[in-house]
Amino acid sequence: MMAEKSGLPIEKVKELFCNEVGYQTPKLGTRAAIFKGNKILLVQENDGTWSIPGGWCEVNLSVKENVVKEIKEEAGIDIAVERLIAIHDSNKHYKGMYPYGITTVFFLCKPTGGSFTENDETIASGYFALDNLPELSEDKGSKEQVEMCFKAYHNPNWQAEFE
Amino acid sequence: MMAEKSGLPIEKVKELFCNEVGYQTPKLGTRAAIFKGNKILLVQENDGTWSIPGGWCEVNLSVKENVVKEIKEEAGIDIAVERLIAIHDSNKHYKGMYPYGITTVFFLCKPTGGSFTENDETIASGYFALDNLPELSEDKGSKEQVEMCFKAYHNPNWQAEFE
Repeated sequence: MMAEKSGLPIEKVKELFCNEVGYQTPKLGTRAAIFKGNKILLVQENDGTWSIPGGWCEVNLSVKENVVKEIKEEAGIDIAVERLIAIHDSNKHYKGMYPYGITTVFFLCKPTGGSFTENDETIASGYFALDNLPELSEDKGSKEQVEMCFKAYHNPNWQAEFE
Repeated sequence: MMAEKSGLPIEKVKELFCNEVGYQTPKLGTRAAIFKGNKILLVQENDGTWSIPGGWCEVNLSVKENVVKEIKEEAGIDIAVERLIAIHDSNKHYKGMYPYGITTVFFLCKPTGGSFTENDETIASGYFALDNLPELSEDKGSKEQVEMCFKAYHNPNWQAEFE
């Protein structure tokens, strides 16, 4: 099934899953929507494209702990995690390079200090208005997800999306 | 680190993780809080203890799709998924048998049809008042999580918990 869906050879698919003990579940990721005025913080990947900062959840961290760690690493800043924006099934939002499911948790966060520092994962960070977004990374999220974050930011009664 | 935390031998821990390609993230589970009047639906495990129905998220399903499937399997009923109650890091709530992290998503759901049918995972189901709970399964959830579900059910303005 996975081979069919992802277009990868069956051997490659087997290699991705074999030998994991315990139930195989979707991979879990976390992302932070951070605003200043009416602009959202994006980070620039090594390939030049931009994305909402975040990444894979560490196996020993909660989603909240993980998003704090990821934003410090990728954007150099400290954050307060304020609200849950959404739990998305990434396969419904973009075509990534992954044959397994990815569940991504989006949080609305507030910057509390720090600034961008050189790191291995990103090359720059910046705040962008919705009508002036840079080229987005195609396998880290979609434009619709950026738009969702703006809507959540502007709506104090936002109910967390799930699917 | 994991060996130390879980008390398992290092070899056993290596076996749990080795050869998985792709980033190792917490396992993902889903559970459904389903009420009738002021009682919550619990299912009885094979060992005789009871728990909020739910289980591991299938790699190709979203959390919402998965909870619908799980409840049909374990409790025999169809549900409408209404609200997000919480995203919990299970390590913060009970001591399970798992050395890896488990992220559990709780939904408030409404029964729409069906009834308990014999299956491989559970032996019975029933609705219970908070002050008359049966013996709960220790590695499927905590009493505090059952109490949280009652609170969410009674509060139309419930904001999804996360940690």
